[in-house]
Amino acid sequence: MAAAHSSRRFKLTIAYDGARFAGWQSQAGGNTVQDAIERALAVVGKTPITVHGSGRTDAGVHALGQIAHFDAPAESNLTTETWVRALNSNLPPSIRILRAAQAPASFHARFSARGKIYRYELWTGSVLPPHLFQRAWHVPQGIDDESVRRVLEMFVGEHDFRPFSANRGTPTTDSVRQISRIHCTRSGDSLKITFQGNGFLYKMVRMLTGAAVKVALGRENERTIRDLLAMPKSGRWTHVAPSDGLYLVRVLY
Amino acid sequence: MAAAHSSRRFKLTIAYDGARFAGWQSQAGGNTVQDAIERALAVVGKTPITVHGSGRTDAGVHALGQIAHFDAPAESNLTTETWVRALNSNLPPSIRILRAAQAPASFHARFSARGKIYRYELWTGSVLPPHLFQRAWHVPQGIDDESVRRVLEMFVGEHDFRPFSANRGTPTTDSVRQISRIHCTRSGDSLKITFQGNGFLYKMVRMLTGAAVKVALGRENERTIRDLLAMPKSGRWTHVAPSDGLYLVRVLY
Repeated sequence: MAAAHSSRRFKLTIAYDGARFAGWQSQAGGNTVQDAIERALAVVGKTPITVHGSGRTDAGVHALGQIAHFDAPAESNLTTETWVRALNSNLPPSIRILRAAQAPASFHARFSARGKIYRYELWTGSVLPPHLFQRAWHVPQGIDDESVRRVLEMFVGEHDFRPFSANRGTPTTDSVRQISRIHCTRSGDSLKITFQGNGFLYKMVRMLTGAAVKVALGRENERTIRDLLAMPKSGRWTHVAPSDGLYLVRVLY
Repeated sequence: MAAAHSSRRFKLTIAYDGARFAGWQSQAGGNTVQDAIERALAVVGKTPITVHGSGRTDAGVHALGQIAHFDAPAESNLTTETWVRALNSNLPPSIRILRAAQAPASFHARFSARGKIYRYELWTGSVLPPHLFQRAWHVPQGIDDESVRRVLEMFVGEHDFRPFSANRGTPTTDSVRQISRIHCTRSGDSLKITFQGNGFLYKMVRMLTGAAVKVALGRENERTIRDLLAMPKSGRWTHVAPSDGLYLVRVLY
């Protein structure tokens, strides 16, 4: 029975305001989301506990439904409700555990993930409303939605997205990803772009958004994007949309 | 001509994130919205300029459409567009001038106002999403919307709202106000209450909301509210909803 207890794995659904943190991933002296959650886990679980996220989010990037897992210590027999309540009382209000659920020992927040949904929010009015500060990308010139849509359509499907990812030290061995859906919704000065795919390379969503906006502003040729996508080893896209406008909406399993 | 110039009055439409300020009204050493706007006006107008708001908002209260006016110095011949752009470059991103318009010398942001629209936002889910922190009142118990609506309905019409206002030193001479409309919209765990009236006493919207919620939580009797409204000199309501959830939406002229 002790053995069964020692493998109690929990899946957490987490939301955070990215503006207040140096990203997800734990770092020395860093004010990161993972650090904050592990501090709370240590208090509630009365022992150091590692939390495994579905993936990193950069400084400034928001999460509405980040997923992570941890293994509760053998001695602990807290219910999921107690974990949620106790963790939230030990976390700043800018990080919230929305839900907790028990998960099989085979579940891994990162390796079991089958896809993700991200949303990118733009504000195209001349003045950014104060409540969207650090929560949307302000493009005050206004943009042509049809151009945005046309560029984004090119990205749907299976592609080698190498040109649209930032190098993170090690070269990516497999840079082929499948985007199943990109969806734009316009409401007044607000433009929201939703990306759903089986995975995204480092900074990929921000680079795809950057590409669409550059073309829509007439500062880049649609052709350049098409060529990079067709010949992924021919070059590299460089314009990364700011982190403020990006939301990790959901992780699919 | 100089005389005509010297009376150039401007009407500003202003939005701000109340969480970052000690309210609207200028105060010694205070980090207030009015102080910030007057600092920006002094830079752009090259002389001290007083701004007159439609009314105060307390620390924490948000504005989506606060109105204020100021008189441009005789020497200034900036256009409305230039005022907007220049003021915004001299303001923190948590205060934005949304629009400016010239107004007749007879226009006064406070005395010309014929009414106001406020919105109060509640979140009734067990966990407050991080993006609503300092932007909604968290009532985690959940509440009965029908009770909320029933209490709020009592407030519609012309009443002496003396029991539902905080004393601000001097007794209010005229505490009769007309509320033309109160409207609740529920979407999932979010409940928004919109108040429209010809004027509101100090803390009145927060006290009316506090009353509706207390009754809906079963912690106060509907009768108490009804009696206070019918016999305004008989007592005083004390439960003030937090400032975080309150938004000044619009000033009517």
